[in-house]
Amino acid sequence: MSVITVGTMAFDAIETPFGKVDKIVGGSGTYVAYAASKFVTPIQQISIVGYDFPQEEMDELKKRGVQLEGVEIVPDKKSFFWSGKYHTDMNTRDTLITDLNVLADFNPVVPDSYQGAEFLMLGNLMPKLQMSVIDQMKVRPKLIVMDTMNFWMEIAMDDLKEVLKKVDVLLVNDGEARQLSGEFSLVKAARSILQMGPKFLIIKKGEHGALLFHGDHVFFAPALPLEEVFDPTGAGDTFAGGFIGHLAKTKDISFENMKTAIIVGSAMASFCVEKFGPERMKEITQDDIKARLNEFVQLVNFDIDLV
Amino acid sequence: MSVITVGTMAFDAIETPFGKVDKIVGGSGTYVAYAASKFVTPIQQISIVGYDFPQEEMDELKKRGVQLEGVEIVPDKKSFFWSGKYHTDMNTRDTLITDLNVLADFNPVVPDSYQGAEFLMLGNLMPKLQMSVIDQMKVRPKLIVMDTMNFWMEIAMDDLKEVLKKVDVLLVNDGEARQLSGEFSLVKAARSILQMGPKFLIIKKGEHGALLFHGDHVFFAPALPLEEVFDPTGAGDTFAGGFIGHLAKTKDISFENMKTAIIVGSAMASFCVEKFGPERMKEITQDDIKARLNEFVQLVNFDIDLV
Repeated sequence: MSVITVGTMAFDAIETPFGKVDKIVGGSGTYVAYAASKFVTPIQQISIVGYDFPQEEMDELKKRGVQLEGVEIVPDKKSFFWSGKYHTDMNTRDTLITDLNVLADFNPVVPDSYQGAEFLMLGNLMPKLQMSVIDQMKVRPKLIVMDTMNFWMEIAMDDLKEVLKKVDVLLVNDGEARQLSGEFSLVKAARSILQMGPKFLIIKKGEHGALLFHGDHVFFAPALPLEEVFDPTGAGDTFAGGFIGHLAKTKDISFENMKTAIIVGSAMASFCVEKFGPERMKEITQDDIKARLNEFVQLVNFDIDLV
Repeated sequence: MSVITVGTMAFDAIETPFGKVDKIVGGSGTYVAYAASKFVTPIQQISIVGYDFPQEEMDELKKRGVQLEGVEIVPDKKSFFWSGKYHTDMNTRDTLITDLNVLADFNPVVPDSYQGAEFLMLGNLMPKLQMSVIDQMKVRPKLIVMDTMNFWMEIAMDDLKEVLKKVDVLLVNDGEARQLSGEFSLVKAARSILQMGPKFLIIKKGEHGALLFHGDHVFFAPALPLEEVFDPTGAGDTFAGGFIGHLAKTKDISFENMKTAIIVGSAMASFCVEKFGPERMKEITQDDIKARLNEFVQLVNFDIDLV
C-alpha cells in the first residue's frame, strides 16, 4: 500500500529554552516520511532540494523504504532554510529567517511510477501546488489528507477553498480552524469546515491534544504529558506521518480506525519533540512505539458503569 | 456516606460574551453542594451568609439533602459578592468587584452533628480556615480534598504548605501548579507537589481537560467540546462536587476510581457552563448525567492492537 507525500525537505536552525542548533535537516516532507515509513512502505516522496542537501539523509530515507524519484535536485541553488526561536511555553515561536531558495521554483511532478498510490499526504504548501498534485493523479487516491496554515488563508484563501473541495481529511491547528471558519467555538468551526469539502477534520491543539470531527461525531486524543518538550519542530508533520502511515498499513479509512490513527500520530509526535530535528524518528524501534502506545491507553482508560 | 463541604455561598454579577446577570446566587460551596448531592447525601455544608441570602435557595439545597446547620447567618451584614467579566476565550476573566462582607469574619465551625463524616471537601478559602476545619474533626476523614488559588500562594504560602501536609487530594489549575512548584513542565510540577503532602494531584486545564497524578501514574480526562460555553463561573467547584460525590457514593478512593470520579466531575462541569449560575445543576436529571457520561466514553474510546 503506497503513500505519496508532498512536502519540503529543508534545513532548520532552531533555538529553544533547552538549546540551539545552527543547521539541521528538517522540512515537513522529511518528518512525514520518517514517521509514515515506520508503518508502511513504500513512501513516495515529492519534494525539491538544492545542491547542499546531504546525500546521507537521502540514503537514510531510501533505506527506510522512502522512494525519492519525485524529489527534484536543483544543482545551482540552496535548499529551503527556516530559522525560528521558541518561547518558554513551547506553543509559540518567532520565525527569524525564511530563505525560500529552491522552494521559490517548486513545481511538484508526480512520477509515473507513483501513479496508483492509494494514499496521498499533501503537506503544507501553496494551495495551487497541492491542487496540481491532485490533478496529476490519474486515479483518485482512496484517501487524500491535507495540511495547510494561516499564511495561505491570508494570501490564497480562494485557492485553498478549491483544494478543500477535493480532499478527505484536513489537518489544522485550533487558531487556523477559527480563522478558516470565522467561528470561535471549535465545535462550530468544525461544522462549518466540514461543509467546505473534507469529510474528516483534525484540529491539533499541541500539548492539549487533538480533536477529530466527522459528521456529528467527535473524538479526542490527548497529548502525552512530557517532562520536557525539547524541540516541537516537526511534531505536527510527524503526527500526520503516523496518522496516514497507520491508515495505509491497516487499509481501513473508517472513522473508528481514524481514532486509532490519531493516537498513533500523537505517539509519534511525542517522540519527535524529545530531541532536535528528526533524530528520535531514526532511533526508535517498533517496541518503543508499542510501549508509547500503551502509555496512551493507560493515560485515558477508565471504567464507568452506565447502567 | 456523608460529605462535609466548606466554601462560600454568595452573590455573583457576571458578564460573558453571551450576556450579563446583575446578581445571582453563586459561591464555591453552593456549586459543590448542588453537584455532590446528585450522587450522595447528606452533604454537610459549612459556610457563612448575610441577611440577604435567599431563603428559597436554602430550601432548594435542603430538599436535595444538603444540611445547613454549619451555615452561619449574620443578621446585620450582606453576603459575599463577586463581580467579574470574561474575555472572549472564556479562559480568562477580570474581577471587577470583591465585597467580602460576611466573609471577612468567617470562622468555620464544624457542628457536632457533622462529626464522623468520611469525606471532606475544603473549598478555596484562606489556608488558616481550611486548617481550622481539619483540626476540628475528631476523627480524620477517610479522604480530604482541597481546592486553593494563586492568591493564597502570594500572601499565605507558608500556611498553605502546612495544610498541604494534611490533605489527600489537591485541586489546582495549570498556572497554580506552576506557581506552587516553580516548575514549568506540569509533569515536573506534579512530582514536586506530590512531595508536599497530597497523594493525588488534579491539575485542571479548563477547556483542555484535567490531569490526575498519583505516584508515577497519570490520567487525562478531556473536557467535552461544547458549541458554546455560556458562563464558566463555578465550573471548577462543580467539577470538585461531582468528583467527591462519586467517590463518596462508591466508597472507593483508589486511583482507578478517582479516574472515573474525574470523568464524573468533568461531566458535571460541562452542564454547569451551559447557563448562568447553578441553574443547570437544578434542572438536570440522572438520565441527563448518564447520557453526558456516555458522551465522554465516546469521546475518548479507541481500539488499538498492541500485540
